Amino acid sequence: MLTLYYAPNTCSLATHIALIDAGAPYELKRLSFAAEDQRKPDYIRLNPKARVPTLVTEHGVLTETPALLAYVAQRFPAAKLAPLDDAFALAQIQAFNSYLCSSLHVAHAHRMRGYRWADEPEAIAAMQRKVPHSVTQGFELIERDLAGPWVMGERYTICDPYLFTLAQWLEADGVDTARLPGVMAHRARCAALPNVKRAIAEEFA
Amino acid sequence: MLTLYYAPNTCSLATHIALIDAGAPYELKRLSFAAEDQRKPDYIRLNPKARVPTLVTEHGVLTETPALLAYVAQRFPAAKLAPLDDAFALAQIQAFNSYLCSSLHVAHAHRMRGYRWADEPEAIAAMQRKVPHSVTQGFELIERDLAGPWVMGERYTICDPYLFTLAQWLEADGVDTARLPGVMAHRARCAALPNVKRAIAEEFA
Repeated sequence: MLTLYYAPNTCSLATHIALIDAGAPYELKRLSFAAEDQRKPDYIRLNPKARVPTLVTEHGVLTETPALLAYVAQRFPAAKLAPLDDAFALAQIQAFNSYLCSSLHVAHAHRMRGYRWADEPEAIAAMQRKVPHSVTQGFELIERDLAGPWVMGERYTICDPYLFTLAQWLEADGVDTARLPGVMAHRARCAALPNVKRAIAEEFA
Repeated sequence: MLTLYYAPNTCSLATHIALIDAGAPYELKRLSFAAEDQRKPDYIRLNPKARVPTLVTEHGVLTETPALLAYVAQRFPAAKLAPLDDAFALAQIQAFNSYLCSSLHVAHAHRMRGYRWADEPEAIAAMQRKVPHSVTQGFELIERDLAGPWVMGERYTICDPYLFTLAQWLEADGVDTARLPGVMAHRARCAALPNVKRAIAEEFA
């Protein structure tokens, strides 16, 4: 049994969807960011980064979305969520997910988590003002190469729930979604999947 | 033949070291950030992100350090740079490298690349002031779990050249290295490796 610690409306949704896609046995533990559950001692012992997602496995604790997505794909190979034996194709998937994590999610985080990188309220406000620009720029790079129907082309992979999850935040980040028709079509395609509907329903159950 | 586009004193050093560790056939193409080579049309066609590293393989172009490191490990399995067949152990490696990429490198980047996240000079200066704190915090999480001699314990993996590379920047980031004895010992251990010495010599050749 795998246990996923998650918070609603965060990047943990990507791993949640992948667990369903994989047919993995899992249970959910919900954290409230409003109640700062992620900073409470029990959780910090599990994940000293005080972030989600955290996946507890029978071998130990794992964190970081790109790592969790690749883990789910490798652990449940029958679901064919990644081309595990093709080093180049797998690296393309990892590169995409790493970009989402280290560039796109980071650009987004400057709207709500600016305190990580500056103390002054004026500086934090300045970061917030740039989020529509920096997030748009990041998604435009994805838009450029998004042939569809899925991120890697004809086959759905662990890139798809991750892109879907981050694309949920576009409007709140002040992005003009008309500039991202491919990303928006991908988001709609994912939103219609039964597994995605189930994950979102479970997050708020 | 693999071609690594790199710039001296950047995170591309990690992949460079791993290529040597793997016994991979490779050639280097040096970019000058001072000359803004990374923004020139020929390079942008290769890597529209305008960053390093870029690895050109016979199958196509790859980017993002965590993806390149995993690719090198999978492509040259005889070098045993990662436990490829152990999903949990491999995910631990990927989680570590993803953290370096999306948290530690990002904290560091606020010293020189603040313009990515704000426009006002005062905000960019505020970010620079917080770098010693945020980079220290990130490395303290690593210090906590660094039993040594290598990141994953007894076995050298693709985590080691990456941590070594980022730890090169500690002093310039204003970090009090006395707080990080484990990280500093790891850095010295890596610096003494023939492959690391060779990579650094090649970068400046």
